[in-house]
Amino acid sequence: MSSNTAESIIKAIKKDHKAIKQVLFVGCGASMADLYPAYYFTLRESKSLQTAIMTGNEFNFDAPKNVGQDTIVISASLGGTTPESVEATKHARELGATTIALSHNEGSPIVQAAEYTIVHGFDKNYAEKVEKMTLALKLAVEIVNQYEGYDYYEEAQTAFDGIYDLIEDQIKYVGPSAKKFAEQYKDEKTIYVMASGATQDVAYSTANFLFMEMQWIAAPNYNSGEYFHGPFELTVKDAPFLLYANDGKTRKMDMRALTFLQRFDAKYTLIDAKDFGLSSIAGPNVIDYFNPMLLTGVFRKYAEELAAARNHPLSKRRYMWKLEY
Amino acid sequence: MSSNTAESIIKAIKKDHKAIKQVLFVGCGASMADLYPAYYFTLRESKSLQTAIMTGNEFNFDAPKNVGQDTIVISASLGGTTPESVEATKHARELGATTIALSHNEGSPIVQAAEYTIVHGFDKNYAEKVEKMTLALKLAVEIVNQYEGYDYYEEAQTAFDGIYDLIEDQIKYVGPSAKKFAEQYKDEKTIYVMASGATQDVAYSTANFLFMEMQWIAAPNYNSGEYFHGPFELTVKDAPFLLYANDGKTRKMDMRALTFLQRFDAKYTLIDAKDFGLSSIAGPNVIDYFNPMLLTGVFRKYAEELAAARNHPLSKRRYMWKLEY
Repeated sequence: MSSNTAESIIKAIKKDHKAIKQVLFVGCGASMADLYPAYYFTLRESKSLQTAIMTGNEFNFDAPKNVGQDTIVISASLGGTTPESVEATKHARELGATTIALSHNEGSPIVQAAEYTIVHGFDKNYAEKVEKMTLALKLAVEIVNQYEGYDYYEEAQTAFDGIYDLIEDQIKYVGPSAKKFAEQYKDEKTIYVMASGATQDVAYSTANFLFMEMQWIAAPNYNSGEYFHGPFELTVKDAPFLLYANDGKTRKMDMRALTFLQRFDAKYTLIDAKDFGLSSIAGPNVIDYFNPMLLTGVFRKYAEELAAARNHPLSKRRYMWKLEY
Repeated sequence: MSSNTAESIIKAIKKDHKAIKQVLFVGCGASMADLYPAYYFTLRESKSLQTAIMTGNEFNFDAPKNVGQDTIVISASLGGTTPESVEATKHARELGATTIALSHNEGSPIVQAAEYTIVHGFDKNYAEKVEKMTLALKLAVEIVNQYEGYDYYEEAQTAFDGIYDLIEDQIKYVGPSAKKFAEQYKDEKTIYVMASGATQDVAYSTANFLFMEMQWIAAPNYNSGEYFHGPFELTVKDAPFLLYANDGKTRKMDMRALTFLQRFDAKYTLIDAKDFGLSSIAGPNVIDYFNPMLLTGVFRKYAEELAAARNHPLSKRRYMWKLEY
């Protein structure tokens, strides 16, 4: 294993692999969700790469049959010890793929297992909470650019350069909104969560991990486009919703959901990339891919306030870290 | 448009397109979920095809940039009028892709929009409820086989030949279990739904459409592997779960979830492909892909009993078919 920048890692891989055919993103839970923007980017922007995202054990038990020497597998695990993700990284190598792991823990098993690694921050501030997600996207941008050429590479670099400071800057102002959210939602037993585009798995992550895992609140989540094909039937007065809105191509889907929530007087909280000035750091050709980082970074403050208002720390668990299962 | 068999459609396409690079599955709601097994198959079995699945408006607003003459787009809409799916079919043609639409409605807009169409049954019996899903898989099998060769093509045909009768046969015996489920769950406000592998979107479909849309019951849903990375924290005595279990490679993930549900005395209902004899019609190399049809077909009976016990017909809606939105 060797830890380095996204650019140097892909350069090194390209020396040994002149052509690649496939990039797979494999993780578990929040770390899988953190890989989604990179997956979304690759699917939209690559000319010829196959790509997919899946949870660790689906890769371990039922990997695509064509995984081999022309495949890059990018895995991630915050603490670096998630057994399914460590196993997936090993399994990918056994199948002949080139492996890159993202982790916050330099000496961890996933870092040991992968050929290339990026060690990222997490604890210092809100921006660091999205370093894993951002660096995964950076890897995807490097893969597409170095193997195929990416017209908006410089525009993407500008956004990478600005995203962390934007989050830290915006966090200064969200305190009152976050407190209001916490007060309004602290007694809810169920919260519905929506997002679209590259942000879809921010809804997934917010619902499954911040709400269900860390707050023990039931949280159905779905794409804001999918809302209109069924789940919108649960939109009644005061039904509690959380809606992420992108600045970018799929914003129309989010705004359509917002209009419906307003029409039937649901209780909703809108976390909108436009309110946080995403376009000040991201140009129109790359902005879609930077919504998830900004919205995740900012919403962390809301989650902290919710935890405080409910007197239920985000670190409280019944089972995780306590049992064998 | 011309309606025909999966085999003849792909033969006809191959005449004009000697090589293809990409197969995209585009639908909305339950019709998107019905395309998931075909997507899952293509991702696992194809040597070189790019593939993805997405909701209609994500394709309309943010399609992959490489969609073109070497892309097949498979869309689906039960009634054939879902505006986002009709638009996606038109948009795919504008981009130069070859389009195939699945619909129950022969004269519908989606059938008019697509170059190739398959009109499927739905009303006659439980087996017909999964015709759309089955025919989508059949298209995927034909694509992989005709363009690349598929070693287990004959084994797949045997399973296709047997799946409908198996469903109709098993439906005869599930009445008591379905009634028991309905009695046990009829007063629940929330039901958690899990599945793995090709069946993942059966959990999605059950939760978002049968439960949330048609019964107004909140229903978080997730992959049974993902359960252990967060949502399992909500597993307490009598918490209501529905678990689909596959016969196939990812069964271990489902069984692990089952063990945890039992350990903490949750209220669970297991819908298990092994109980319904899937292996009697599907050989070991293709069985994974036929779980979703069997489990969907059989669970329909459970949903009907739940609707009856709650005096809430599956056709009852607040908004769908009633409003413009």
